[in-house]
Amino acid sequence: MNLDVIGEWKRTHYSVDVKPEMDGCEVTVFGWVQEIRDLGALRFIILQDREGTIQVTVLRKKTSVEVLSKADALQKRFSIGVKGTVKKTDMTPRGVEVIPKEIKVFNTAESPPIDICGKTLAKLDVCLDARALDLCREENIAVFKIQHKAVEAIREFLFAQGFIEVHTPRFIGSATEGGAALFKVDYFGRDAFLAQSPQLYKEQLVMSLEKVFEIGPFFRAEESHTRRHLSEFVSIDIEEAFADAGDVMQLLEHLMHHVCKTVSEKCGRELAVLKYSVKVPELPFKRLTYDEVLEELKAKGIVISWGEDIPTPVLRTLGKIHPYFYFITHWPKSARSFYIQPCADRPELTEGFDLMWRWIELVSGGTRVASKGLLVKQLKEKGLNPDSFRCHLQAFDYGMPPHAGWAIGLERLTMMLTGKKNIREVTLYPRDKARLTP
Amino acid sequence: MNLDVIGEWKRTHYSVDVKPEMDGCEVTVFGWVQEIRDLGALRFIILQDREGTIQVTVLRKKTSVEVLSKADALQKRFSIGVKGTVKKTDMTPRGVEVIPKEIKVFNTAESPPIDICGKTLAKLDVCLDARALDLCREENIAVFKIQHKAVEAIREFLFAQGFIEVHTPRFIGSATEGGAALFKVDYFGRDAFLAQSPQLYKEQLVMSLEKVFEIGPFFRAEESHTRRHLSEFVSIDIEEAFADAGDVMQLLEHLMHHVCKTVSEKCGRELAVLKYSVKVPELPFKRLTYDEVLEELKAKGIVISWGEDIPTPVLRTLGKIHPYFYFITHWPKSARSFYIQPCADRPELTEGFDLMWRWIELVSGGTRVASKGLLVKQLKEKGLNPDSFRCHLQAFDYGMPPHAGWAIGLERLTMMLTGKKNIREVTLYPRDKARLTP
Repeated sequence: MNLDVIGEWKRTHYSVDVKPEMDGCEVTVFGWVQEIRDLGALRFIILQDREGTIQVTVLRKKTSVEVLSKADALQKRFSIGVKGTVKKTDMTPRGVEVIPKEIKVFNTAESPPIDICGKTLAKLDVCLDARALDLCREENIAVFKIQHKAVEAIREFLFAQGFIEVHTPRFIGSATEGGAALFKVDYFGRDAFLAQSPQLYKEQLVMSLEKVFEIGPFFRAEESHTRRHLSEFVSIDIEEAFADAGDVMQLLEHLMHHVCKTVSEKCGRELAVLKYSVKVPELPFKRLTYDEVLEELKAKGIVISWGEDIPTPVLRTLGKIHPYFYFITHWPKSARSFYIQPCADRPELTEGFDLMWRWIELVSGGTRVASKGLLVKQLKEKGLNPDSFRCHLQAFDYGMPPHAGWAIGLERLTMMLTGKKNIREVTLYPRDKARLTP
Repeated sequence: MNLDVIGEWKRTHYSVDVKPEMDGCEVTVFGWVQEIRDLGALRFIILQDREGTIQVTVLRKKTSVEVLSKADALQKRFSIGVKGTVKKTDMTPRGVEVIPKEIKVFNTAESPPIDICGKTLAKLDVCLDARALDLCREENIAVFKIQHKAVEAIREFLFAQGFIEVHTPRFIGSATEGGAALFKVDYFGRDAFLAQSPQLYKEQLVMSLEKVFEIGPFFRAEESHTRRHLSEFVSIDIEEAFADAGDVMQLLEHLMHHVCKTVSEKCGRELAVLKYSVKVPELPFKRLTYDEVLEELKAKGIVISWGEDIPTPVLRTLGKIHPYFYFITHWPKSARSFYIQPCADRPELTEGFDLMWRWIELVSGGTRVASKGLLVKQLKEKGLNPDSFRCHLQAFDYGMPPHAGWAIGLERLTMMLTGKKNIREVTLYPRDKARLTP
């Protein structure tokens, strides 16, 4: 059962692996025609694959009629295979070219509606409308390779720390977590909702699996159109038994260090394509309390009423004072969810924290409430009905341990690692109020 | 910012890591009270954590009043910490016990509604209703540790093969893939649907990232209540450019070999808890064509009309003839999706395949159609409207390469690796037509 169009063709090398020291070797490369330049006696075909490009040089006088006729018919974006001989040369930037012996055309192509060589960049919405093609741009491939490497580094780190990967449900029966901004689903004729986070489930799981994490899509019916919100996003969630905010903050800063180090060391080519660099942060990260942040802002002439959240324009100012990673700790109870533990000595404060990167909230976390009585009290204080949380509260009857955790937004993390300014650029197929395609 | 209930307590060991050769050492263990046995002068507390159990032995005469009063107050499922001295002993199965110097009670517990020590197992639905507690059973912890290890092994294998992990959207604008069994969402006042698979997106991505995979939740409004269907499941999907069914079948059998080998080697304790073993399969797997399967069944007196799918009761018979892994290839076009490539020499057959494990369809895959014209033709043949696939078809205009892929159901894979007979047992919080909680 072999697809006839491939036949016995097998890729021997990606473009970047064809090197001058392979002079005289036979190779087979696969990819797409990125550019064609015709100089009469010579025809240059730039073949692109996901790893880069390689020049295929057709010398009219020395090439068979069959190969010539195929080379002449090529157009941009045709997907092709080339069997040929590697030649060292001074005429290409990488010092190497391939002299073709055989060309196979897998598929033809229309003229692309957007320039994917990046010379004239279309508006983001135009690019997103042709996303499959837009993703062929070298910069976009670089973005998603960096994202891939970051997620790999995160798992590697969490595995080493003894975390178990879990899969919690997206369908939930009642509008928990305040019920704000949940998507409603027709679930066999009754109402269900799509989970905004694995929060309640990951908390329940510390009773059995103790240290858990989940990486997956979650949903929020976000009305506002900003550069950092989507209606569907990937969350990286952990929860740990017998741990508190201090423990998981330390885990988090070491994780961020590991991710930045991995990406800066292993994604050199991709970062060069993006003309960006990732600084490996020093440990420990700066820790500011909410009160200290308010003081700093006051010194800049900005007054925030105590207990209120910090609005985005103000965070931008804060990001100028602290241009890299910093924690904001001891948030007021009024600005945190019902499941965050109040501080023992000042119960109007909580053990909730945010990890900031410049002005962007990258991670939110904290010690959770482990006492059922306190949880019920805090639900009521937030105007929520404990009856809607019956299934969740039940878990707290059987020895719920102290626990803490956090959630990283993968897209925001990717913005940090790639320097992209709009969350839609770091999402393969972004979804917001206006966009549901492609 | 330290949670007062933990204070400076730090776990030094999991239960299983406390060994007889540590006689005399000081340890701190955390966990839950699984059992208490009182012999008057002695009180045995079996402490359970996710890795196993350890006996804490309280000798009334040699124990402080403070520790004694705490030990006497303990009940099943209290979450506790114990600081104590390791003692080698002949009196416990593992040859070791801990003599407590300090006991900390983190949380108390009600009397559990189900027996989680596994002596009297409640009905599955009763267990699922108290799932957070039910998951504390040693067998359940074993199941999800095996699942975790299997997924880790899958990623490890795919990373080594150069696959890039991607995150495709769950919200889709139109009811594609036939529209059958899709969940409808209220998306800011208009209709959207939840994706059944990343099929179309992963196909588009081979144009840029070439080799991609995704592991995540997908949704199917499955009306029938069986032991192997859920409305929400985790799919492990790959797609590869410049590849055909033969290539991805070979990849798949090597992956299955790697997963079985990893689980059998690294999950010895968990498999022992489940009284199950995982056989490492020999390569290559058996390959049967659809026609050969029909012949085999005919010899058993079962007649399937050519072109029809093979119903479950018949698969059970087939599973008895082939008791481990086997491929069924060359499925008729009538039994496959529109995106599966027909065979060049016999266009009524396809390059679609299933990987079977006994009677269970574990994986489905095939070579995909890369030609836009053929894709449009096959959409029409299946009664689908190409206009609904406009966004997807557009990608085929720009050099779509030949490609192939498959999808593994993670829950079915976990059934295979744990010997569990109902898919709900291998899902943390299963969802079906009847069940939307906890």
